[in-house]
Amino acid sequence: MKKIYTVFAISIASVAFSQIQKVEPAFWWKGMKNPELQILVYGKDIAKSEIELSDGIKIKNIQKVENPNYVFLTVNTNEINVPKFTITSKKDTKNKSTYTYELKQRLANSANRESFSSKDVMYLIMPDRFSNGDEKNDSNPQLTEKANRSLPNGRHGGDLRGIINNLDYIQNMGATAVWLTPVNQDNEKVYSYHGYAQTDLYNIDSRYGTNEEYRELSRNLNKRNMKLVMDYVTNHWGVSHWMIQDLPEKDWIHQFSEGDKGFFRSNYKTTTQFDTNASEIDKKYALDGWFDTTMPDINQKNPLVLKYLIQNSIWWIEYAELGGFRVDTYPYNDKEAMAKWAKAITDEYPKFNIVGETWLNTAGYISAWQKDSKTGEAAHYNSNLPSVMDFMLYGDMPKAFKEKDGWDSGLTKLYNVFASDFLYPDINNVMVFFENHDTERWNEIFNADPKAYKMALTLISTVRGIPQIYYGSEVGMRGDKNKGGDADIRRDFPGGWKSDKQNAFKPSNQTAEQKEYYQFTQKLLNWRKGKEVIHTGKTKNYIPQDNVFVYFRYNDKESVMVVINNNEKDTTVDLKRFAESLNTTSKGKEVISGKEISLRNSLTIPAKTSFIIELQK
Amino acid sequence: MKKIYTVFAISIASVAFSQIQKVEPAFWWKGMKNPELQILVYGKDIAKSEIELSDGIKIKNIQKVENPNYVFLTVNTNEINVPKFTITSKKDTKNKSTYTYELKQRLANSANRESFSSKDVMYLIMPDRFSNGDEKNDSNPQLTEKANRSLPNGRHGGDLRGIINNLDYIQNMGATAVWLTPVNQDNEKVYSYHGYAQTDLYNIDSRYGTNEEYRELSRNLNKRNMKLVMDYVTNHWGVSHWMIQDLPEKDWIHQFSEGDKGFFRSNYKTTTQFDTNASEIDKKYALDGWFDTTMPDINQKNPLVLKYLIQNSIWWIEYAELGGFRVDTYPYNDKEAMAKWAKAITDEYPKFNIVGETWLNTAGYISAWQKDSKTGEAAHYNSNLPSVMDFMLYGDMPKAFKEKDGWDSGLTKLYNVFASDFLYPDINNVMVFFENHDTERWNEIFNADPKAYKMALTLISTVRGIPQIYYGSEVGMRGDKNKGGDADIRRDFPGGWKSDKQNAFKPSNQTAEQKEYYQFTQKLLNWRKGKEVIHTGKTKNYIPQDNVFVYFRYNDKESVMVVINNNEKDTTVDLKRFAESLNTTSKGKEVISGKEISLRNSLTIPAKTSFIIELQK
Repeated sequence: MKKIYTVFAISIASVAFSQIQKVEPAFWWKGMKNPELQILVYGKDIAKSEIELSDGIKIKNIQKVENPNYVFLTVNTNEINVPKFTITSKKDTKNKSTYTYELKQRLANSANRESFSSKDVMYLIMPDRFSNGDEKNDSNPQLTEKANRSLPNGRHGGDLRGIINNLDYIQNMGATAVWLTPVNQDNEKVYSYHGYAQTDLYNIDSRYGTNEEYRELSRNLNKRNMKLVMDYVTNHWGVSHWMIQDLPEKDWIHQFSEGDKGFFRSNYKTTTQFDTNASEIDKKYALDGWFDTTMPDINQKNPLVLKYLIQNSIWWIEYAELGGFRVDTYPYNDKEAMAKWAKAITDEYPKFNIVGETWLNTAGYISAWQKDSKTGEAAHYNSNLPSVMDFMLYGDMPKAFKEKDGWDSGLTKLYNVFASDFLYPDINNVMVFFENHDTERWNEIFNADPKAYKMALTLISTVRGIPQIYYGSEVGMRGDKNKGGDADIRRDFPGGWKSDKQNAFKPSNQTAEQKEYYQFTQKLLNWRKGKEVIHTGKTKNYIPQDNVFVYFRYNDKESVMVVINNNEKDTTVDLKRFAESLNTTSKGKEVISGKEISLRNSLTIPAKTSFIIELQK
Repeated sequence: MKKIYTVFAISIASVAFSQIQKVEPAFWWKGMKNPELQILVYGKDIAKSEIELSDGIKIKNIQKVENPNYVFLTVNTNEINVPKFTITSKKDTKNKSTYTYELKQRLANSANRESFSSKDVMYLIMPDRFSNGDEKNDSNPQLTEKANRSLPNGRHGGDLRGIINNLDYIQNMGATAVWLTPVNQDNEKVYSYHGYAQTDLYNIDSRYGTNEEYRELSRNLNKRNMKLVMDYVTNHWGVSHWMIQDLPEKDWIHQFSEGDKGFFRSNYKTTTQFDTNASEIDKKYALDGWFDTTMPDINQKNPLVLKYLIQNSIWWIEYAELGGFRVDTYPYNDKEAMAKWAKAITDEYPKFNIVGETWLNTAGYISAWQKDSKTGEAAHYNSNLPSVMDFMLYGDMPKAFKEKDGWDSGLTKLYNVFASDFLYPDINNVMVFFENHDTERWNEIFNADPKAYKMALTLISTVRGIPQIYYGSEVGMRGDKNKGGDADIRRDFPGGWKSDKQNAFKPSNQTAEQKEYYQFTQKLLNWRKGKEVIHTGKTKNYIPQDNVFVYFRYNDKESVMVVINNNEKDTTVDLKRFAESLNTTSKGKEVISGKEISLRNSLTIPAKTSFIIELQK
């Protein structure tokens, strides 16, 4: 891509003079804590028109920008006492255009809504690859890329209806929150199924469904006491986004004028955010460089952009009754602007949880992104971001289970991760996972060994934080990113398409292999649902010895002992070492097998196996 | 070792009743900021005697302990107006014993003494293996282990005189501070040369020399504007220490009564110090376990022990006119007690520097040990320790230079270390090194490739912090800890013994290989001596690209560009990227070669080479 974006690059054809073509947000709500609303009104040369509101409503501010096709109106919703009012754009009495703006009623308790937490297990779905519940929406004449399941990087037809249809499956498996990769419109020409190059922030991509279906999914989840978590992208939009194609201001996105190239790729080195000594050029590339050619980097420093993002975020929470955000590429954004973004949202919804994709290697760095962290403070920063992803654990987990046990290798790597927990101000609000849609699948790394999966799932389901599992892992799906690229780690879920020969959504139809993964997952996650001791209990770590890692989760009421034996052979552990956690307990019940276990003297754990033992008094 | 230490385990033979056998500290000084002095008086059943001071001096407190062979007298030195006074122990008029206690005058400016800092280069010497300057002291009839140079783990005869004799060599090489591994008496039966099992904290081991010679060394260094840094050990003493053999109190050391063993080895997992969830048993083993069989673990929580350590530390600073402490096994100590220890010393000497051996893997953990760190604060801790060792850099340096360049490997590992600098409250007061007396020698890892040495030395000599080099590296000494154990990384310096065939202390006698290492070292370190821009300048990092790492050190007056090319081939770097640091500079001078370098468009650096370029205006 060689062209530099300039304002007016695209002319809007066949639009009547001063016609209101688009209003965003399309509607809003009464009674928000922040009563100020900024309404974007878009139309050819709209800035040259006169803008009026009906019912004597005062416009606090009309902000015009470089591009005359935009005006930004600020109103105070507390001062508006009608449910609907009219926005009128007029050049003269003949040429005028109107838009009816609605201020809806909020749901009771909307501001105080619950959000995902360590009580939940998050199930990550790539909607295009999960289940095709509505074949009619697979392609859309107005959207460029058509469904073609034979292309690994093409659109396969999975959709919201497919997810709604399988909520029993998801719930029965034990997940309590669902994170979908982005489902807003992504009208890029190719490779659009992942949705991260959004072209309309207020509309669900019709190939996934409608805004109403998205809300239906959320409401269905809420009825089940589950949550819908939106994958929110502040860092970049799709190059085909209508605003990118007709930029309000040149600095709406980051543009590079050096040399002859309009596009500059990020260096992906977001450590520059807290590196006191980072060069300006490295920071510029890291933060302002584009994530990919189709993803212009959004300038959150521009107050209009920031306000647009904040309102869009709030709009989705309120409209779709969301239970949380996962935010893409968090450290690639302007960090001061993001602190304002996170604050604006959590001011409006104090319990709303937001987890940032903090893909960094060490707790020192990851924790600096969590609200009120001392490590952030060391960098004179407070993110206001409630939750972060434990990429340190993610990075060390395969090593921990693959390496030979040593002073600083093997399972000790896990202990070393947890030994850094003191750096986090809110360690329970950290997402824990061993794979996601951007990584090698665990089952590939461990060559489809269900034992490896069981140990990994046991770990993330019983340590502090919010476990996240990736669709298909629960039936042993494989995927080799190194060989097959992203497509391979995002294979279609078996049974999601009518033509599929085998349907893993129906437990009775699962293969023996699938059953082994699924039944373990179901047992473990359903057990976890009610376990306050896991959700919010304290932890007691015992440094791995002889390739066995033992920790306890406990509270005033109960105590759970987790034993992970990474040896290739059955291993007997002397229980004396755990006296301070066992106290007078002499027996427990192993959660998966349901068997009673004696905790008198020693405990023998089979090779490559974990025990989760509820202590009995 | 099976015995449990008990008080009175060793009876003191042939001592007259109530005889004062030992007084520690043997003397003290007037005019300390803290006027309180605790005098240990030792003698058979001394606690049953009456203790008096002459000249009407009041004893504030006489503390008796479990063992009647000790009393601890507290006096206020501000209230003592005589230079000498008498301590008398009497049972009755016939049975009495006296000791003349002296309060010396302090040197002018003693309290305000300068200490080592980032202006210095620290040269680490194992005295037994450096130079035998006095063959007469090689063995001592009263000390068990005799010199035997044929034993790899034996005493080889190196001593303080040998160091004093070679100060020209050390100074000419460019070091400005000398850290000796411990030289206090270590009267263990075997393997005593390393000195970490000290048996007398107030006396230099006679096989190294005398207290006076130690002070002579320090004074000689001070005259050269150099500093002597003592290796202080708070964590453990030697099992043959006289106080260990006749414990004042049972809890003077950590003893384990579990099972049938008196000795319990540390688990060496000092991450337990800040692990909020560490089990008590893991913490107990980490902190209270013994470092080795000959090293009883000292209980710094005992206030008498702590006071003893504080006074002994101050005694050495004042007596030997020290320029700093390096403290052994810092995280193995009780951290609250050590915070008091460090505070007591720095209260007395506000500029005195103390660097702790913080052998941990990540900046999050290491920084938590530095005074006023936010990471420490996250663990509700303030160490009061001014300086820490950058073991993260140490651990990543070999990987950085050995690995292939990648997003997260090779030289980027170095950048990632420096990107964590924000976690340290005082990043200039961090010791940087690529080897020491406990590690594989760099020259072994890189198979005696002088290019690898030059790149490593360039790095630690030009980044933030206090570079530390290990004796012999400057002449290319090798040592393989994996094969030959500690002895192999502590080989005798060639020329340190009269019988040595070759003397590397004399540059003219050095082999061609030795010369290549030495001359580079000498050039670089002597250049560094005057370079404020390196000592305290700011840093600008440029993320490694194409296996080349570039950073600048700069202040208002000057600017230095460091370019490290880790490629196996000559590499040309486009200079445009560094415009913000180069400004209008178009040329520079390379420090080692002295050559003028054009900085107009591009720069070609030979394979596996570093350039240090002083920018010219």
